[in-house]
Amino acid sequence: MAEVRNKQVVLKNYVVGFPKESDMNIVVGTITLNVPQGSSDMLVKNLYLSCDPYMRLLMTKEENPSLGVVTYTPHSPLTGHGVSQVVESGNPDYEKGDLVYAMTKWEEYSLIPSSQIRFKIEHTDVPLSYYIGILGMPGITAYTGFFELGSPKKRENVYVSAASGAVGHLVGQFAKLSGCYVVGSAGSKEKVDLLKNKLGFDEAFNYKEEQDLNAILKRYFPEGIDIYFENVGGKALDAVLPNMRLHGRIPVCGMVSQYNLAQPEGVTNLAHLIFKRVKMEGFIVTDFCHLFPKFLEFVLPLVREGKVVYLEDIVEGLENAPAALVGLFNGRNVGKQVVDVGHH
Amino acid sequence: MAEVRNKQVVLKNYVVGFPKESDMNIVVGTITLNVPQGSSDMLVKNLYLSCDPYMRLLMTKEENPSLGVVTYTPHSPLTGHGVSQVVESGNPDYEKGDLVYAMTKWEEYSLIPSSQIRFKIEHTDVPLSYYIGILGMPGITAYTGFFELGSPKKRENVYVSAASGAVGHLVGQFAKLSGCYVVGSAGSKEKVDLLKNKLGFDEAFNYKEEQDLNAILKRYFPEGIDIYFENVGGKALDAVLPNMRLHGRIPVCGMVSQYNLAQPEGVTNLAHLIFKRVKMEGFIVTDFCHLFPKFLEFVLPLVREGKVVYLEDIVEGLENAPAALVGLFNGRNVGKQVVDVGHH
Repeated sequence: MAEVRNKQVVLKNYVVGFPKESDMNIVVGTITLNVPQGSSDMLVKNLYLSCDPYMRLLMTKEENPSLGVVTYTPHSPLTGHGVSQVVESGNPDYEKGDLVYAMTKWEEYSLIPSSQIRFKIEHTDVPLSYYIGILGMPGITAYTGFFELGSPKKRENVYVSAASGAVGHLVGQFAKLSGCYVVGSAGSKEKVDLLKNKLGFDEAFNYKEEQDLNAILKRYFPEGIDIYFENVGGKALDAVLPNMRLHGRIPVCGMVSQYNLAQPEGVTNLAHLIFKRVKMEGFIVTDFCHLFPKFLEFVLPLVREGKVVYLEDIVEGLENAPAALVGLFNGRNVGKQVVDVGHH
Repeated sequence: MAEVRNKQVVLKNYVVGFPKESDMNIVVGTITLNVPQGSSDMLVKNLYLSCDPYMRLLMTKEENPSLGVVTYTPHSPLTGHGVSQVVESGNPDYEKGDLVYAMTKWEEYSLIPSSQIRFKIEHTDVPLSYYIGILGMPGITAYTGFFELGSPKKRENVYVSAASGAVGHLVGQFAKLSGCYVVGSAGSKEKVDLLKNKLGFDEAFNYKEEQDLNAILKRYFPEGIDIYFENVGGKALDAVLPNMRLHGRIPVCGMVSQYNLAQPEGVTNLAHLIFKRVKMEGFIVTDFCHLFPKFLEFVLPLVREGKVVYLEDIVEGLENAPAALVGLFNGRNVGKQVVDVGHH
C-alpha cells in the first residue's frame, strides 16, 4: 500500500462574519492510495476544486437542524465540487484513470463514496476545469434557474445581479441567446466593461457607484423587469421588487450579500409581489441533477463553437485556496473561481 | 326623470397611517334614476357593499404610476364590490330588476359602466349578501390562491394567517375539505375558539398572545409548513420562512399588516426560499375572473349543503360603513365585513 503525503485545507473554526484566510489552515497528512477491501468507495486524485459562495453557509455552526444542512467540521477538510481522477475504484462502474465530476474534499487525494460522483467525464476535448464551471454545477444552475424557473420569452427584460460571477455571466449569455434584453450589475468598472464588451450584455452598471439602485433600474428598465435572476438578496432585491413587471419571475439562486451578516438586511417591498403578480422561487441545483445529460447536450456545442464566453479565474495550489474562497465575498474573482490542485 | 336623494360615503382626504372614520364623510346628494340617452351604462340600486383590506391601498395618493393602481379621489365616493339591482339598463344583456355583482360606489344609487358588472346573479336561493363574500371576490380569492397557486395535496400542512377573515376562514375550510392539516392564527380568543370549534381548523392560536411566533409554528408544524396562505406580511412572514417545508408554496394574497405603515417591516429570512426551494407567488383575483363559473359550480353545493361555514359581519346603513371599513385594520370584524345599504 502506497502511503503518500496529502495536503489539506481544513476549517480552523466556525466563521463569524466575513470569512478570512486565517479561518482555514493548510495541513499535511498522509493517505494510503487504495480503497479498503469490500468497500465501494473511490480513491481519487483531485485535479480542480471549485470555490462557491454556498460554502460560506457551511462554515457556520447550524443552529437549525430542520434545514438538513451538513456544515463543515472544524479541523476537517472543506468539501466541494471537483474534477478528480480515479486512482482506485471500489465500484465496477469506474476504473483507474477515469475522470469524474464529484463532491470531493479540499485535499490532494480523497477517499469518497461513489454516491458523491455526479458523472463520469466523457468529453475531454474541452478543458477539464470547465466541468466544475460551465459544464458543472454553476452551468446547470444558470440553465435551470433561467430556463426552468425563469421561463424566458423572446424580447423579455432580464436583470442579473452578480453578473460577472460564475453563474451570472452564463445567465446573461443564455438570456441573450434567448433573444432577451439583458442588464447586469457587478462591483467594478473592469467587470462592467467585461459584461458590455466581451459577454454581450446590453447594459451593465457598477452597483457600488450607484446611490439609488431603484433609479438606475428604472432607467434601464422603463417597462419593468420580466426576469430577475437573484444572486445577492437584501437591498438589491428590495430595489428590484418595485421595478418588476406584471407576471415577472424571480428565480432565487443565492443571496450572497447576506451570508456574512449576523442580521440579514430587511426586505420591505414584498407587497409588490402582489401588485405585479410576481413568482419568486428558490432552488438548489442538486434537485436538477437529472437534467445534466440534457444540459450538456445544450451547452457543449455552445462551448465548442465559441457561442458562449466562459470566464475562469484560476489559482494554483491548495496553499492559495483559502484566499480564493475568501475572495468570492470581496469581489476579487472574475467569473468562475477555480483552484488548480496541481501535480497532474 | 325621478330625482332622488343619494347618500354617499366620500373620502375626505388621502389617508396617512391607519385609516380613521374621520377620513370619510357621509354626504347627501341627488341622482336622477335613469341612464343618459345612448349610453350603455347601468343605473343600479346598491344593496350590499363589501369592505376589503385592499381598499386601504386606494386611500393613499399613489406616487408610483407604474403600478397602474387607480386610487380614490378626495370628495368622491369610495368604490368597491357590491350586490346591486338594476333600476335602468343601457345594456340589452340586463333589464330592470336584475341582480348583479359589480364594482360599484359607496352610495345608495350608482351609475356604472356595464363593464363593471362581474356577473348577473342567477341563484337567489342563497342570501344575496353572499355574492360579495363566499360567492364573490373573497371566495374566489381563497379558491384560486389555495388551489391554483397552493396546489394542495392530501395530508399536507397548511398555515393560514388572518384566519378568521373573509378569505382566511374559507381557505382553512377548503384545506380541510382537501384532507390537509390546518392551523390558523387570529387576533382574539373569540376568533381562535371559532376557528377550532366552528370552522374545523385542527389548531389555532392568538398571535397577539405569542412572544415567539417561530416557536409556536415549530410546535404546530414539527415537520414544517407545505402551504402558507399569506394574508399579513411583515413579521408573520419572517417567522414562517424558516418553518417552511421542502418545496413549500406561499400564495401571497395580501400583506394587510403592512398597508398602514409608512415604512414596511423588513423581512430578513428570505434565504430560506432557497434552502427549502419555496415558491412564493403574488396574485390578484381579478386575473382569475374567468374561473367564476367553475368556482360557483364548486362552492354553491358546499354552501347549500352546509359543508362550508360562512361568517358574515353585517352593519346596517351607509352611516356605519366608515367604521366597518376602519374595523378591518383593528380586528373588529369576524369573517366577511358587509355593509347592508338598506331600503330593499
